[in-house]
Amino acid sequence: MKAQEKLQNRLNKGLHICVGLDTDKNKIPKHLTADKNGVLEFNKAIIDETSEYAAAYKINFAFYEEAGAEGMEMLARTLELIPDDILVIGDAKRGDIGNTSKMYARSLFDHFNLDASTLSPYMGEDSLSPFLDYTDKIHFILALTSNPGSHDFEKLEITSGKKLYQEVISKVNEWNVNKNCGIVFGATNLDELKENIKSFGDLFILLPGVGAQGGDLEGIVKTFRQNSNNNYIVNVSRALLYADSSKDFAKTSKRILLNYNQAIKNLD
Amino acid sequence: MKAQEKLQNRLNKGLHICVGLDTDKNKIPKHLTADKNGVLEFNKAIIDETSEYAAAYKINFAFYEEAGAEGMEMLARTLELIPDDILVIGDAKRGDIGNTSKMYARSLFDHFNLDASTLSPYMGEDSLSPFLDYTDKIHFILALTSNPGSHDFEKLEITSGKKLYQEVISKVNEWNVNKNCGIVFGATNLDELKENIKSFGDLFILLPGVGAQGGDLEGIVKTFRQNSNNNYIVNVSRALLYADSSKDFAKTSKRILLNYNQAIKNLD
Repeated sequence: MKAQEKLQNRLNKGLHICVGLDTDKNKIPKHLTADKNGVLEFNKAIIDETSEYAAAYKINFAFYEEAGAEGMEMLARTLELIPDDILVIGDAKRGDIGNTSKMYARSLFDHFNLDASTLSPYMGEDSLSPFLDYTDKIHFILALTSNPGSHDFEKLEITSGKKLYQEVISKVNEWNVNKNCGIVFGATNLDELKENIKSFGDLFILLPGVGAQGGDLEGIVKTFRQNSNNNYIVNVSRALLYADSSKDFAKTSKRILLNYNQAIKNLD
Repeated sequence: MKAQEKLQNRLNKGLHICVGLDTDKNKIPKHLTADKNGVLEFNKAIIDETSEYAAAYKINFAFYEEAGAEGMEMLARTLELIPDDILVIGDAKRGDIGNTSKMYARSLFDHFNLDASTLSPYMGEDSLSPFLDYTDKIHFILALTSNPGSHDFEKLEITSGKKLYQEVISKVNEWNVNKNCGIVFGATNLDELKENIKSFGDLFILLPGVGAQGGDLEGIVKTFRQNSNNNYIVNVSRALLYADSSKDFAKTSKRILLNYNQAIKNLD
């Protein structure tokens, strides 16, 4: 199934929460840490409890690569546990010269068989096109991120009067000829979302910053609704994964996810 | 040994060529491709012939990650073959929110025990500081890259009158309190190098673009000499690795490296 179709099916059901599998072996419940496959067992339990109710998964390469080859094996085995009908984003913020980006794209899509990427725009179009050439995948390009450092470069005003991240959004719209582009847009400042939402066109929007980072879910949902835009997913990682360290941790994660889903539905 | 010391020792000997280990299993000599450890044998031969005469190695994660966990194992085993007294740059163009960057930094420096990173500046200071906190390592932050897409964002003029990449250079100089910062500055346009070299301060400079990408080595060396700046390394990957597909390929790579070194020396 095309990535676009997988995501659209979930969005049509009113599902907008992306579960971030940033699994940190130091934060999983103690009863799992003794086992060398503890991370995998943790992921399996979370996936089993949430896969019906999530809009997508986002797997953060850093948390696996930290353990080298063994970690990457754990990433591959986690991916095997995820049902085929839900979008899985490989979050590694790629972007390099053409022949190198081609290799990273092969890694994400041919080796790990992921549905979507996150990309860094700094090096420009030819650093991204080897990814965008995968037309049945979705590519989320960093526009405005949710961290304090977004002031250093992303929010610089360029001579056209736009901010750098706004120029990125404009370029990504140009590059979206195959309807396979998206942007990352930080959810920590609602005013910025309101100010920019009309520029999103039909891009898919991935919003980090809700949960541990404090973004306002209700405000985000209302803003998209008011603009008749349903193409958004909101990532939650830590606040969903580590709320409970008992043996029932995954059921707690499910309850949190269902609460988010209900909060979104209540705004109908 | 500190990364800075490793690099300085080589620079003091007049060595400025960084050998890029972008090993593509489809480009190595045919007699090695049958063996599943062919990439490793290729790397071993190249390292054995070049380690005395190179300024540094740069290992490109993409070319290993493309084969997943197995590829990352090959990366780790390649690193074991490199003598401890030469700088090894882990080239993965990292940059993410703080807790994720921390994981990537652990991967590079604690797991793979590399000496240096390449980083993407887009997300700003707090996306880079988990790397910069490793003060005995060197961190090369993308400023101006050698690809056509550098026009899309890097060369945009910001309202201060500077170009975005020039603002990056200025910030990296501010962040260089521990003398562990560097920049990536594309070597394909000599005029840009001449125009900006005075802004480099005491940053370490990594210049891609010589070899397959056509940069002018002589012009680069002369420009640094004229500015009494010795803190630069010039990366060569494809032009050095794949010049010969016979069994003597590594001796050919050594000869090419020695030719580069001689060309630099001739400008004394």
